[in-house]
Amino acid sequence: MRVRKKAWTVAEYDNNPHLIHNPTEHKGKWKELFKNDNPIYLEIGCGKGRFISQNAQKFKDINFIGVERQSTIVATAARNVGPEAENVFLIHGDVENLLDFFEPGEIKRLYINFCDPWPKKKWYKRRLTYRQFLDKYRELFGGKGEIFFKTDNRILFEFSLNEFCANDWKLSNISLDLHNSDYEDNIMTEYEEKFSSKGFPIYRLEARCGDK
Amino acid sequence: MRVRKKAWTVAEYDNNPHLIHNPTEHKGKWKELFKNDNPIYLEIGCGKGRFISQNAQKFKDINFIGVERQSTIVATAARNVGPEAENVFLIHGDVENLLDFFEPGEIKRLYINFCDPWPKKKWYKRRLTYRQFLDKYRELFGGKGEIFFKTDNRILFEFSLNEFCANDWKLSNISLDLHNSDYEDNIMTEYEEKFSSKGFPIYRLEARCGDK
Repeated sequence: MRVRKKAWTVAEYDNNPHLIHNPTEHKGKWKELFKNDNPIYLEIGCGKGRFISQNAQKFKDINFIGVERQSTIVATAARNVGPEAENVFLIHGDVENLLDFFEPGEIKRLYINFCDPWPKKKWYKRRLTYRQFLDKYRELFGGKGEIFFKTDNRILFEFSLNEFCANDWKLSNISLDLHNSDYEDNIMTEYEEKFSSKGFPIYRLEARCGDK
Repeated sequence: MRVRKKAWTVAEYDNNPHLIHNPTEHKGKWKELFKNDNPIYLEIGCGKGRFISQNAQKFKDINFIGVERQSTIVATAARNVGPEAENVFLIHGDVENLLDFFEPGEIKRLYINFCDPWPKKKWYKRRLTYRQFLDKYRELFGGKGEIFFKTDNRILFEFSLNEFCANDWKLSNISLDLHNSDYEDNIMTEYEEKFSSKGFPIYRLEARCGDK
């Protein structure tokens, strides 16, 4: 989606203290930025930041980082986080560069929420749960970590189940209709609220690598 | 489902050579009955036998055994198999007794097609993919084997995904809408044809234990 730039987002982008402009400089040193040793959870494609903000408010002893590719969107997320949130930072960047931003083992959990499903079969290598991405996440975790994945796209979810299983990730809490399930800790993204309110099922899973 | 007995099913039950009345006597010796060393695949709840018959016709170098709890139904299956099928036998019996019928390792693959979903949560222990059944199948396989599972019930499929994963079965070929997928080798059961023709999605997976 191409997003029209609004004047305030430029100012927000330049000045919001939650927005990190030089993520590679913090590689291996994110805990210095957070000023504590709490585990760091990363959301890929954090959008306008609702999910990460609510998580940060709810789990004060966890540090959250959101990565978002679009400058206008990440600026909106930065504003939405609010000035008082001490456990959130945002990166304007791409999933392709995660290993430039973090040392292996620096991230303990990854959230992938409603990523582009790339529904046509010929595009499967672009899907964020394609095995080459899974290998990258495993490296990011330093071999041991977990991914919490949500989507409203059946094709992507089916593909993801198969990719995770084929690459020896251990799955749990698989849901084929999250909002009619027993899972109680769900925090909705903006997109999720919109689509689930129309009656579309939301799919979710947790995938772990290493012995955690 | 209670099934009304028809006169011909009684005769079929008593006289059809495909119907084995004393399965425990063949424990460990099924290959003598088949008169070859081909692998034996077992269908639990074979219904009226369409799935097992078509498989037996298509795969002549595999031996098939169907287990069915209801005498009238298994008699119908026996008739449907046809007199010429040399690679099919049917057992009037219950899944609870599988280990009385077979030696560990005697069965290489299990088909579970459209079993009772026991949809109410309090009934989950009766579902044929509940972990206690999975442990029984693993024993049946002698530690190494595979299950091909199909259902039209979303709740049962979600439950089954979680049970298989939690118990270290390796999943593959997971489909959330089998009849709109690339899977080409599907043989439909009677039930499957009826429900998929109404537009309901069919779920399918393959689960392996051991190193196969």
